[in-house]
Amino acid sequence: MACCGGCLCCHCCCNEGDIRTPEELTILGETREDDDDEILPRKDYESLDYDRCINEPFLEVLEGLDNKKARKYEAIKWILVFAIGVSTGLTGLFVDFFVRLFTQLKFRLVGQSVEDCSEKGCLALSLLEFLALNMMFIFISSVLVLIEPVAAGSGIPEIKSYLNGVKIPGIVRLRTFICKVTGVLFAVAGGLFVGKEGPMIHSGAIVGAGLPQFQSITFKKIRFHFPYFRSDRDKRDFVSAGAAAGVAAAFGAPIGGTLFSLEEGSSFWNQALTWKVLFCSMSATFTLNFFRSGINFNKWGSFQLPGLLNFGEFKCTDGDKSCHLWTAVDLAFFVLMGVAGGLLGALFNCINKRLAKYRMRNVHPKARFVRVLESLLVCMVTTLVIFMASVTLGECRDLVSTINNSTSTQGSVNEEVNSTIRRFFCYNNTYNDMATLFFNPQEVAIHQLFHQNATFSPVTLSLFFVLYFFLSCWTYGVSVPSGLFVPSLLCGASLGRLVANILKINFHMQIYSGTFALIGAAAFLGGVVRMTISLTVILIESTNEITYGLPIMITLMVAKWTGDFFNKGIYDIHIHLKGVPLLEWETEVEMDKLTASDIMEPNLTYVYPHTRIQSLVSILRTTVYHAFPVVTENRDNEKEFMKGNILISNNIKFKKASVLTRAGEQRRRCQSMKSYPSSELRHVCDEQVAVEPAEEGQDMLQQMLERRHVPYPNLYPDQSPSEEWTMEERFRPLTFHGLILRSQLVNLLIRGVCYAENQSSASQPRLSHSEMTEDYPRFPDIHDLDLALLNPRMIVDVTPYMNPCPNTVSPNTRVSQVFNLFRTMGLRHLPVVNAVGEVSLRLRGTFTLHCFQLKTESTSCILTVHLHNNGFLVA
Amino acid sequence: MACCGGCLCCHCCCNEGDIRTPEELTILGETREDDDDEILPRKDYESLDYDRCINEPFLEVLEGLDNKKARKYEAIKWILVFAIGVSTGLTGLFVDFFVRLFTQLKFRLVGQSVEDCSEKGCLALSLLEFLALNMMFIFISSVLVLIEPVAAGSGIPEIKSYLNGVKIPGIVRLRTFICKVTGVLFAVAGGLFVGKEGPMIHSGAIVGAGLPQFQSITFKKIRFHFPYFRSDRDKRDFVSAGAAAGVAAAFGAPIGGTLFSLEEGSSFWNQALTWKVLFCSMSATFTLNFFRSGINFNKWGSFQLPGLLNFGEFKCTDGDKSCHLWTAVDLAFFVLMGVAGGLLGALFNCINKRLAKYRMRNVHPKARFVRVLESLLVCMVTTLVIFMASVTLGECRDLVSTINNSTSTQGSVNEEVNSTIRRFFCYNNTYNDMATLFFNPQEVAIHQLFHQNATFSPVTLSLFFVLYFFLSCWTYGVSVPSGLFVPSLLCGASLGRLVANILKINFHMQIYSGTFALIGAAAFLGGVVRMTISLTVILIESTNEITYGLPIMITLMVAKWTGDFFNKGIYDIHIHLKGVPLLEWETEVEMDKLTASDIMEPNLTYVYPHTRIQSLVSILRTTVYHAFPVVTENRDNEKEFMKGNILISNNIKFKKASVLTRAGEQRRRCQSMKSYPSSELRHVCDEQVAVEPAEEGQDMLQQMLERRHVPYPNLYPDQSPSEEWTMEERFRPLTFHGLILRSQLVNLLIRGVCYAENQSSASQPRLSHSEMTEDYPRFPDIHDLDLALLNPRMIVDVTPYMNPCPNTVSPNTRVSQVFNLFRTMGLRHLPVVNAVGEVSLRLRGTFTLHCFQLKTESTSCILTVHLHNNGFLVA
Repeated sequence: MACCGGCLCCHCCCNEGDIRTPEELTILGETREDDDDEILPRKDYESLDYDRCINEPFLEVLEGLDNKKARKYEAIKWILVFAIGVSTGLTGLFVDFFVRLFTQLKFRLVGQSVEDCSEKGCLALSLLEFLALNMMFIFISSVLVLIEPVAAGSGIPEIKSYLNGVKIPGIVRLRTFICKVTGVLFAVAGGLFVGKEGPMIHSGAIVGAGLPQFQSITFKKIRFHFPYFRSDRDKRDFVSAGAAAGVAAAFGAPIGGTLFSLEEGSSFWNQALTWKVLFCSMSATFTLNFFRSGINFNKWGSFQLPGLLNFGEFKCTDGDKSCHLWTAVDLAFFVLMGVAGGLLGALFNCINKRLAKYRMRNVHPKARFVRVLESLLVCMVTTLVIFMASVTLGECRDLVSTINNSTSTQGSVNEEVNSTIRRFFCYNNTYNDMATLFFNPQEVAIHQLFHQNATFSPVTLSLFFVLYFFLSCWTYGVSVPSGLFVPSLLCGASLGRLVANILKINFHMQIYSGTFALIGAAAFLGGVVRMTISLTVILIESTNEITYGLPIMITLMVAKWTGDFFNKGIYDIHIHLKGVPLLEWETEVEMDKLTASDIMEPNLTYVYPHTRIQSLVSILRTTVYHAFPVVTENRDNEKEFMKGNILISNNIKFKKASVLTRAGEQRRRCQSMKSYPSSELRHVCDEQVAVEPAEEGQDMLQQMLERRHVPYPNLYPDQSPSEEWTMEERFRPLTFHGLILRSQLVNLLIRGVCYAENQSSASQPRLSHSEMTEDYPRFPDIHDLDLALLNPRMIVDVTPYMNPCPNTVSPNTRVSQVFNLFRTMGLRHLPVVNAVGEVSLRLRGTFTLHCFQLKTESTSCILTVHLHNNGFLVA
Repeated sequence: MACCGGCLCCHCCCNEGDIRTPEELTILGETREDDDDEILPRKDYESLDYDRCINEPFLEVLEGLDNKKARKYEAIKWILVFAIGVSTGLTGLFVDFFVRLFTQLKFRLVGQSVEDCSEKGCLALSLLEFLALNMMFIFISSVLVLIEPVAAGSGIPEIKSYLNGVKIPGIVRLRTFICKVTGVLFAVAGGLFVGKEGPMIHSGAIVGAGLPQFQSITFKKIRFHFPYFRSDRDKRDFVSAGAAAGVAAAFGAPIGGTLFSLEEGSSFWNQALTWKVLFCSMSATFTLNFFRSGINFNKWGSFQLPGLLNFGEFKCTDGDKSCHLWTAVDLAFFVLMGVAGGLLGALFNCINKRLAKYRMRNVHPKARFVRVLESLLVCMVTTLVIFMASVTLGECRDLVSTINNSTSTQGSVNEEVNSTIRRFFCYNNTYNDMATLFFNPQEVAIHQLFHQNATFSPVTLSLFFVLYFFLSCWTYGVSVPSGLFVPSLLCGASLGRLVANILKINFHMQIYSGTFALIGAAAFLGGVVRMTISLTVILIESTNEITYGLPIMITLMVAKWTGDFFNKGIYDIHIHLKGVPLLEWETEVEMDKLTASDIMEPNLTYVYPHTRIQSLVSILRTTVYHAFPVVTENRDNEKEFMKGNILISNNIKFKKASVLTRAGEQRRRCQSMKSYPSSELRHVCDEQVAVEPAEEGQDMLQQMLERRHVPYPNLYPDQSPSEEWTMEERFRPLTFHGLILRSQLVNLLIRGVCYAENQSSASQPRLSHSEMTEDYPRFPDIHDLDLALLNPRMIVDVTPYMNPCPNTVSPNTRVSQVFNLFRTMGLRHLPVVNAVGEVSLRLRGTFTLHCFQLKTESTSCILTVHLHNNGFLVA
């Protein structure tokens, strides 16, 4: 229960964490690996709820909805996704423009200085200049991340988590957007080995989340009346679209972007949504193309340039008839390169994971400026490496072959490639190969590796790979916005080019070097990120060459399988390190052997349809559950159980004494009532732990807990349930009516929705749907409520506001089925309701509700209600 | 009840069709449009079941499953999808090879003859030659379709239905495959305006369905022991993969294929499956490419050629710096062309629909050879039109411009284009533009329109469009395998080229004609088929030019929206005409206003956990339901209701008299028992209709039916339920335990799974999972059972074989929620179970099960079990 420290703010059940059996721990993904034990799900993550709550206010809205209005909403959605696409494209343009500006400025300045100094011998001065510029950029970037720490990193793990249903605080806020966009600009301009693709995806997702809300938490003044899409359900759709637009803008890959948001986010295929997402991606790509064609080439109105990162055109020269981009024989090498990429990716991930853990233990607890210092250190080392390698390690390679070829049709591509070579200390039609790779923006280096016909020396390529590998591994995780795609691609491309060199020179094979560089890039990137479908499509689209489909796919497959042998993808590792309880795609085989009753939460907190305010406040203050089942007692056993002192039941009849197992809970509530209306209850969660064991009825609870793994009572005569069931006779039978959310209850209290004892519940004021959802996404907390304003004796009728028909499962449903339902339907709460009559026992069939609120693998708080048809001896 | 004619073979509930309220009819998609009234869902379609039945035999299998075995299955699946991909690719190769062979032969022969005869004046002879060849091909094709009628048409509607969950008999059989593949080959070779793309998709789907089964119904000898994937669930996955592979092979569009199978088939996104589907598509594309590169160009080992249909390379000549494939200004024209495409597509669909209806009424009822005659007629007219138009209507156009340009870099493309022009009666560097379009394979004509730099005369293009439009509209639906993609593309391309001509010549705009032809093709195709995501991606991949993404997408969007204004897409029209009860993507807005209780089936048929054989046989013979709820009676009311004469309950106690509402059903069963073991019951469904009204207890049933639309009993005290509920006192309360399928029950009977009265149910033999599923996909019929072998007094314990935890919904769940659950989870049966205790009424809470088996929009037989907590006055 130690984890319950400050958990009232976490809105999520966190008790019972320590009474799990090893079997359960396996289910919950908490198998304690040696080095993983310190990672626990963090408590400030909230689950998103994609299920609609069809309560009465919502039904009123539905009644008012006709086909015309529905079509209007649809049109608004199309306009919004278009706006999201355009905004994301413009964001990409902004980043690209300034990165290009700063980088060109920097390289021109320093390059000029080097060229000059190579004669004068003042290289140290050039280095200082270079260092100063880079460190200035990184300092700005790092300070921006200090302002909004979630802006650090690529953002892909966060967006993946969001689309999976876990909300990390602040991840889709406008402040994050500003810090991320400006931060990545300076991080890339500062010469760190980071890409701008990941941050672009994150930025797109923020645009998607924020734009349709027409309100901002960062800037309170932005608050229009536009309540149509203020729900988790709609927001997720727009975030999908935004993330896809981000990918589309970053890679010029609209289809890849769509598949990315499907792969990372969707649990179900929604044709209409996917169509909108694709449109959004297209808008982003072509907005970017339009402006880039206009600004960079002054070709307004044409859409020539693909995304921020593109791989140029792979094409054989027309004259060369024997040239093939790849042949069947090459496929064998591609498979081997896939294996190598998988191994190296696994190594990268392993090192980065250890590094990240080291940072979490040693850097993060320290003062924040330490992170800035780390960034500056990384920047300094990177700059030094770049400079030293360029100046000292390069070889002078012949440029003739290139120039010969560029008379052919590929002029435009080769011209571009040739214009970016570096000649540091090389004369007479030669160039410095190391400097060409290092002393250029990364995208240019990738282009060089893909399209430069002149060779790079094997030594240069190996050195480049090793330096780049370790530096980019060190960089990913420092406190700047940083993508991983471009560094990985560059790293892999150098490896692929190395393989091509060896095959070409040592084995005299007829191969196309660019293809090998591309496959190397794919292999390493695949080994690091382990994405499948979307990465394949992104790479195909980036090359704009459909015939690369098969080799890229096979390479990625092999790389993923090889890498998965050792560890997870880098994003999943970081998701795990962040403690996000991500739901996997599929359940383990073992899960089929367990049933819902095995994993449900046995600790019940529930409300009655008509409840006193004091009782509600007590429940809300003493628990952290996000939803409560609404139950009634089954009056069949009225004579024995017509008791209870605070809760009132349907017919507003008061009960006087609390009994038996619920005694504990009742007393706890009473206890909390004493301090009413003070708010000392914030830490009652801890108190409970101490108080509980002393309570009466505890033994009964304990028995229930222990019986969780006893097989479910058998229906059939041959195996009659044993006597132990008579133990439960005294549990009060309850019937499940629906679910009510914490936010809804708090809202009802705040708006004074209640009636007096002597009135009918019809006199209770009714809230509209818009009043119920007005405060989205930040619903008021129960502790912000001024209890002095409330009359504790008033009664709240929650029935109009509860969801009367949530999805439910029966207790002997297999966990895999439960999981599928939960994940596919995007649920947050899933009551387990039993409707089994033990008629064969000649017992009177009655209904007992054991409401089990369970923390499963996700903080999603599967609130599982075990509605259990209990047996009573008629005697 | 007229629809019940021969419906015992249909395994699907078909009664109650005529007592629907207009409201329900709306829900069920049966809103009777003026011209739609004669289309009714056909009864020989079966629903597929994608839900796993987790019964005891299955659990045994699960227990035996560990991670190692799971990995083995996974590996087998990968191998199988690879095999499916390769087979589909080879099928494509086979079709392509022979089509190419026959077409080349034909055109060379006839072309030569025309060139010769243009001098000698023997054109009639050429025409006869042409006619004879074409009609021979079409005759073969048409006879093949006579053998297997479902091989007619494109097959896309059928595959769409299959993936949607409706099985059309014979659609995935080996015989169909053979007829389809051979038939399409001859249909295309015969010069009809049909494409081979649709049939390729169908063929791929059959390969996907058949290959992993390792058994065949067509060829009984093919029957290996490989039971792993013999279930609807696995089969669907492979069919998705196969269909995707078909698209991939046809268009060289592996990503488009994957998206096609997602768009048409998936209700949920499954990452692992999608990854396999993409791999399968890639395998198909590259198998085809490998062999085509080898066979056609003798370049073994390279993968140069994309799919069967490819659009060539769109590229500006390098010299022309002002050339753009498209600019922002063009987008406006594209939108207009989209509107035009949508309108023309709607017209096409409208005409084709009327034609199809005419055929259904006037051609199909006649002898089968009439269909062959129709095909031959179409063929004759087509041939005449082709010939006459080529010879008489063409204009001689200058070829100079082409030759000038082909000195540039695009040599290879233009050479290919120029080699296919026709010079009929044109000399001096001119060519006959009409003949070039008509007297060539359709793919070549598309290439001409996309890439021929020389102009086509506007008159020629208009004439070509009109002729092609009506002929292809007439052709789609005749009794040959026929795709629609290529004719639509060609039709649209001519229109687009016409627009380009006008803009270029009349308005002197700087445009790229090929782009306009492409956009025209997309617009018309989009207007006809109304596909969205997959079509966009297929076209992008076919052009191999990512920059066409935006214009293609916008055009398709506009075309779809315009067309949807008038009618549905052609495939949906044909699905509707075939009477397939397709489930749409989303529910109508109105559906949110109805609840599950409004649409559930009130007519209950159920079994007890332990049932006598005679009773089971009776149930199976007198109903057509595909699944039955397993229920027990609630003994709470034993004293009043301890009756019933055939059914035995849990503790094997016998009841003597049937009472009340169930009397009718009981008597019906007894009646059927009289004829036991004869099989005269096959048409009992009709008899029932006559017998039923005379039965006692009928009024009660009627009352229940009438109360279907009475709002569900209220939980809450203020609105107490009225006295009418006391009517239900006498219904016996039941408890829902699970679902058992008809096939499972028949299987149990056939294998003699039962025990004698004086034995314990433990003595009943146990079946393994493989024994339960051995007969997939054709389970034995109850009427094939030799009843003489069965002892009618024996008892069957169905509990080990039932599914104890199917998905259920509560009666006040909104229909849209029910629909989402049903569609998303791929269900076939969805019990409606109520667990509401009316404790507030001070009634004794008990359980009544009203088992409602409902025909909804789909034949899917949503078996809805209304478990209704009924009230009894304690009095």
